Formats: sequence, C-alpha cells, structure tokens
Amino acid sequence: MSLTRNNISVSTQKALTPAANITQWLLHKFARVCVLFCLCVSVAHGASDFANSVSVIATVTSATSAINQSQKDSNATMNDATSDTINAASDNTINKTINNTMIVQKQRHQIETFTTFTGKTIKQLQVGWESYGTLNDDKSNVILITHYFTGNSHAAGKYKESDAEPGYWDSIIGPGKAIDTNQFFVISVDSLVNISAYDENVITTGPASINPDTGEPYGLSFPVVTMRDFVNVQKSVLESLGITKLYAVAGPSMGSMQAIEWASAYPDWVERLISVIGSGAADAWTTTYLEQWTVPITLDPKFNQGNYYHKPKSEWPMLGLTHAIALITQSALHPEFFRNIGAQIGYKVLEEDVLSDIAAKPSMVNWLMGRAGERAALMDANHLLYLVRANQLFVTGMQGTLEEGLANIQAKVLLLPARTDLLLMPYHAELIAQGLAKHNNAAELHYLNGSLGHLEGVAGIAAHAETIRAFLADDKN
Amino acid sequence: MSLTRNNISVSTQKALTPAANITQWLLHKFARVCVLFCLCVSVAHGASDFANSVSVIATVTSATSAINQSQKDSNATMNDATSDTINAASDNTINKTINNTMIVQKQRHQIETFTTFTGKTIKQLQVGWESYGTLNDDKSNVILITHYFTGNSHAAGKYKESDAEPGYWDSIIGPGKAIDTNQFFVISVDSLVNISAYDENVITTGPASINPDTGEPYGLSFPVVTMRDFVNVQKSVLESLGITKLYAVAGPSMGSMQAIEWASAYPDWVERLISVIGSGAADAWTTTYLEQWTVPITLDPKFNQGNYYHKPKSEWPMLGLTHAIALITQSALHPEFFRNIGAQIGYKVLEEDVLSDIAAKPSMVNWLMGRAGERAALMDANHLLYLVRANQLFVTGMQGTLEEGLANIQAKVLLLPARTDLLLMPYHAELIAQGLAKHNNAAELHYLNGSLGHLEGVAGIAAHAETIRAFLADDKN
Repeated sequence: MSLTRNNISVSTQKALTPAANITQWLLHKFARVCVLFCLCVSVAHGASDFANSVSVIATVTSATSAINQSQKDSNATMNDATSDTINAASDNTINKTINNTMIVQKQRHQIETFTTFTGKTIKQLQVGWESYGTLNDDKSNVILITHYFTGNSHAAGKYKESDAEPGYWDSIIGPGKAIDTNQFFVISVDSLVNISAYDENVITTGPASINPDTGEPYGLSFPVVTMRDFVNVQKSVLESLGITKLYAVAGPSMGSMQAIEWASAYPDWVERLISVIGSGAADAWTTTYLEQWTVPITLDPKFNQGNYYHKPKSEWPMLGLTHAIALITQSALHPEFFRNIGAQIGYKVLEEDVLSDIAAKPSMVNWLMGRAGERAALMDANHLLYLVRANQLFVTGMQGTLEEGLANIQAKVLLLPARTDLLLMPYHAELIAQGLAKHNNAAELHYLNGSLGHLEGVAGIAAHAETIRAFLADDKN
Repeated sequence: MSLTRNNISVSTQKALTPAANITQWLLHKFARVCVLFCLCVSVAHGASDFANSVSVIATVTSATSAINQSQKDSNATMNDATSDTINAASDNTINKTINNTMIVQKQRHQIETFTTFTGKTIKQLQVGWESYGTLNDDKSNVILITHYFTGNSHAAGKYKESDAEPGYWDSIIGPGKAIDTNQFFVISVDSLVNISAYDENVITTGPASINPDTGEPYGLSFPVVTMRDFVNVQKSVLESLGITKLYAVAGPSMGSMQAIEWASAYPDWVERLISVIGSGAADAWTTTYLEQWTVPITLDPKFNQGNYYHKPKSEWPMLGLTHAIALITQSALHPEFFRNIGAQIGYKVLEEDVLSDIAAKPSMVNWLMGRAGERAALMDANHLLYLVRANQLFVTGMQGTLEEGLANIQAKVLLLPARTDLLLMPYHAELIAQGLAKHNNAAELHYLNGSLGHLEGVAGIAAHAETIRAFLADDKN
C-alpha cells in the first residue's frame, strides 16, 4: 500500500450556479422541528404546528425531484471547469449577512491529477466548498469544518434569504456564535463520492462522474477512496488559498473521522481538534453495521453492478437506495425521536390494514420511507457504497492501530459524544481520550445529553456551544 | 376487529421423528463460545481454541444443508397427522436424564380448526412442543417457556446425548437448576410461523405449510397472526394436558411478549411472569426497525411476492434471507461481542482487498454472512415476514394501550432487561414496571449486566439464576 503524499495540481473558481438548496438534509429539518416541538410541548398548538411543518417540507421537497436528471447531466459534464485560481483570500469571503443570516456561495475547486491513498489516479477531480468569515492577513484564523456521511460543505448560512433552512451547524457558526465568523475564517469542502451527487449545491467526484479517459461514468471502476483522500482534497483547497495552518478542525460523525485524520496525518497543521459524535477507527461492529446500509442497494434488481447511468432514472436502484437511506436515518436516531413522530402522525400498534394484510406497512414505516425517498432523490446509490467503504477503512493515521495514529496528534482535543448515540456510541470517544492520555494529551471530554441519538451531534450541537467557544478561546497550550 | 375467544378442537401426539438438532440456534453457540473465551482470556491457548470451535461448528452445520429440501417436503405434508390425544400427563414426561443431560423428545399438537385473533381460520394447525420434569397430580406445577424470534420450543435438554448443544435456556432449566425440573413441569411450544420451518425438530404452521383447502403452500395468503394467536395455540396444548393454571410463564425477547400477553389475556391462569429482555408493546422505533429486517427479503429478485415454493431451492430468496438474518444477528449483539470475534478471525481495518476492490468485503462481514447463511438454511423467508409482523402488532392485551393491557395482570412480575441491549432497550422493561406500579403491582426489576447486548437474555441468563430461583420460591402474594 502506498503512503506517498499526493502529487496534486490545483485550481479554484467560483461556482457557476449558486442557488437555493431546498432539500438540504431533510432529516436535520425534522430534528429541528422535533426539538422545537419538545420545547413547546406545553403550548396548545404545538402538535398541529409540527404536523404542518412536516407537510410543508414534504411539499417543497417533491418539487425538486424533477430537476434530478438534468442536474445529474450537468454534474457529469463539469469536468471542463476552468483552471482559474483565486489567490486572494478576500475574494473568497463572499458571504455577507442579511437580517442576521449569512448569505453564502458555493465555490468550485479542481485538481487536475489526484493520486489516491492507494496509488490510483483521478483526473480532473472537482469538489465544492464554501466559507464564512474573513481570512486574516497572516492566515492564522482558519477553522475547517468536515461534514458527516449524508452531509456536504453547507455547514452554515443560506444561499439565499428565502432558503427553508441554513447549513447544518448554523447554530454554532456565524457572527458572534460559538465558532465566531467575526473572528474566524470558516471553510468546508464537499467530500469525494459525496452521496448527494444530484444536489445542485454539491460538487463532487465519484462513480457518477464522467471518467475523462472513457467519456463514460466511472460506476464501480472508480477507485476506493479513504478519509485520507478526503483530507488531501481539503488540503489542496486550503493550499490554493495560501493556508498552511488550521486554528482548528471540527466535524461531526464522518466529519470527526476526517478531523482526527487531519490531526494525525498533518500534525504540524492542526492546533485544535473538535470531534463530535466521532470515532478514531472503524471497529468490527461498526464495519459490519455500515455494510448493512449497502445491502438494499446491492439486492435491488436494478442495481446491475452499478451500471445504471445509461438508463432512464426509472431503471435506477432508487428503491434500494431509499431503503438504505431509511436504515441510515433510523441508525442516526433514537426511540424517543420516533415516539414523538409517531404521536404526531397518529401511529398505533394495532392499525387495521396492518392486522389484515401482510403487504400493508405500519404508518411509521410509511413515514420513514416517505422521508427517505425525498432524500434519496438527490443521492446516488454507487456513491453510498463508496462512502460506506471510506468509513469502513478508517483508522486514525491510516497505517497502524488507533493508538499509533493518535500518537502523532499534537493538537489540543475536544471530544463531544452523544449519550444516546446508537451508531457511534460514546465508547469511540472514550477510546480516543484513553489513547491520547497515554501520550500525555489530556483531551476534554463532554457528553451531549439530548434524546436524539447520533443526531445530537448535528441538531443538538448548540447544547455545547459555550464549551466550543471556550475551547477555541483557550491558548493551544 | 374480532376479539372473540377461539373455537378450537385439539389433538396431541408424540412426534414421529425425534432426532439430533444439529444446528439449533448457531448464534447461541457462538455466544457461549465467546463467553467462554472471555472467561478464559488469560489462558494462553484461548484464542486458537476459539477459532477451532468456530471451524468445527461451521463444518458440522454445512452437513445439514442437504436435508433441507426433503425436510421441507416432509413438513409440508404433515397435515395428515392423527388426532390421538395424550391425556395422562405422565405419558408426556418422556424426558430422562443421562450423564446430567436431560434427553427430551419433540411432541406434536394439532388443532383441527383455529380461529385467529383477526377472525381468520387455519385448518389442521400443527405445532411442536416439548416438556421437562413431571406434571404433578393437581397440575399446579406448570411453567410455560415462550421462545424468542429465531428460537423454538427446544428450551432445555438434548434430543440425544451427542447433540452439540442443549436447548437455549439449559443453564437455568433442569434438575436442581433455577427452574428446577425436580419440582416443576416445564413446557414449551413452537410458535406459529416459526422461522425455522425446515429444522427437523421444529413443527410449525405458516406460509410454507400446505393449505388443506388448495393443496398448495399458503405463501402470502396465510393470515396475519399475532402474539395472542401464539398464546392461544399454547393454551390449546396446555388444555389438551388438562392444565388450567400456570405456576409461571417465562420467556426472552419475543418470548417475553407472549408471556406478558398470557398474563394480560388470561390473568386467572398466570401466577408468575418472568419477562427477560422483553417489551410490553412495540413502539414507533421498534416497529420501524423490525421492518428493516424484512427489506433484504422483499428486495431479493427471487422473492417473487412470496411465491417460490414450487421452484428449486436455488431459486428461493436465500440471499435476501441470509442478509436479513445477518441484520437480525447484529441487532441482537453488542460491539464488544464483535470485537472479540474480530480479534479471533484476524479482522483488520485496512485489509488489502477491501482497500483495492469495492466489491470485496471486510473479513468481519464475511464472517457474519457465513454464520447467517448457515442459520438461514433451515429458515423460511415468508415465515420471517410473518414473525416480524406479529412483533410489530404487539401491545399487551391486544386492544388498547400498554397501560390498559398491564391493568389486567394479576401475576407477580420479574423483569430482566439487559443493560447493553441495543434492540429492546431497558426502557421497555422500565415502562412495564412503571405501568404495573400504577396498578399497585410492584414488579421486581433487575438488570443483566454482561456485554453481549440483547443476547444476554439467552446466553447470559444464568447470571440471574438465583434471582429466578428466589422469585419462583416466593409465594405469589
């Protein structure tokens, strides 16, 4: 296995078509609505408000489905992007604030030749990125945000004021917030093989992209990529801006893996590391559970070994993808979230059709499948398989044991697991803390105590806003 | 919905072909081996012994695959069973003890016409049952054991001395054990739609059975059945033996649901109730998660809406069934179990083929699929769908809320959830305790503290052997 540093040539340009991100992470919206509902449970009209919110979001979302195919086509032909480079950081800080909402714009970054962790070549690699705040003169105020499995670089702000929801960590990123954009230049990058390949606000390279050598989509000929590759692509974006140091790197879930990998692979870069609902290494249980997510896709008769791009979308494995997203969604939640949803939609154990017809589905199942279907409409089945693989292949440092990888880390570390997490359970963070302690690195470890499960690390992160603010305010040593 | 009591005519006979149950619940064996390993972790040769055990079991199991089709055929034609009734209880206590192992025999019970909870008719319903210990003269010493999702009535003992493993709760059922067969007459019944339709030691009626009206397998025309139906079939077996009272009913997981349903539906019968890793009602999360188990089957191109019995077994949805069993198996376990297995099979995060080939699978995944495939060989895909439905449709009392159902219970109650359970988490037992307390029924609640997850309720039950013994020794009031 090659551990060679990448030979990368880079280009960065502004995105051509910034626009509303209507369906940005539906689950997040539901969680926020749910949290809101919990807070307002004593308010008489809370229940009906909640039901209305669900209905409104469902309606808005369905309108986006029609653009998927055309969006796919435009994504697939993005490889002719220019090689303009924006060198002045001020050119990139295009976000402004309207009515307390940061208005942000997706940027595009291209790498002409990227060498993967395993030594494979990806030509004309493209990813999107966005930033919040202003890069200071000595470029010492950079905080990199790394995103979760079904997320993308839209960590905060809105593309336009009328967007239904801001980026996923908007509660802690912005002017005066815990990650204060009056002080920090905050930047985030769409991952390779990003699951939302057909989201107009995501720019990624993966199996659904055109292979420049063949003029056809890669499909399963795309090379296996890893967290180190995600990190190296981010590093390329940062270097294109003249950045050589991170005040901090922070991310939830899969984003935590990238953040930890940053601190281990490039210890000279990373001064502070915030790992939220994270893991320092896949383990036997996690690897096997991640594989369960791929099963509905590979069993779907329309999967066809990943060769479906040449067919009409009705012949794509969308049912399998939807089932996969339903399983992922449930994995990231906790029974209490479901209990609240069930109460709102009128779920009962003894539903008449479920009692009489083996083919009927409980209302809760229909609810989950409906939401999963809306999310899946902008996603790609093959991309999901590659993302799962990248997560299965993660061990801090990407060469030995977790402990060996942690030994490299010089950063000051904050760990924020969620007590109700059923996916990356708190033992992952505790193992990181124990491993760092052996190398005299005393990580701060605090728990998110809400009832949302894994999702606490996104929808509930504001519970530790002041912890994060204080962690960032401290000197490194 | 009909809540009419069943109109049942019954018959009971000895099973024709008691024989070795070679593959009875493989997972149980692995768990036991794992526990053994954990206990022996300081012993130098523990690791290789463990690996050998896995290998031996895999070899033994593969030998049983060849009998599946013939076994299916014999099961499917079992409807010509006689209507002999064994009235004398002593005739049923055929088990004897050889070298401290109870040798037991499967019995057969037929109900000519069974009316389901929803008012449908099943003709010539057959189930298997077995018993341990001797029914006393006034038939006051009966303990009914109700089995879990992938289990059957083989709760204790062996069919022959050379069986690899005894029944799943053998650690607490037997002469001098917590459920002492020197004192109690212990009986267990194969569930309707039992998943192990092709296990020669399971007798069940479900979609794989021949519909006497058509001469063809039911497939998905089999009626939806519920925990109340499982209970009513058990009641029919008991009544055929002249039994009208249960000293106790006890079961793990789905068995707990049946036990609780017994105490709520027939409160005059049940003096003591032991609910292990149980639930008093499916809830929104559980119902949705159970549905995930069905997805690989219904997506399998060979599923064909449940119509596969007329095809050669190579055309059955065995891949989907195997994936379903893999998910169920993982659901019932905890990361620590996987960590131990991973260490034994040499699982590593960065496996060469997994790094280079998107189609390759991590060794842990191959391990789980191998074990699931062995278990699936004796199981039926449609039966799994019906079992899931029965679990989704469970609420104590089967007509109102959990609390209403609990209000009927007169039994003294012992609850034994497992702290590491990721499937039926301890909150289920805590809700039962809270619900009973409202009706002045102070349940005993103790936790299984091992690291096996849900499986603690089966493989780890001996940790509370003395709790169970004391609970049974106490007067009811």
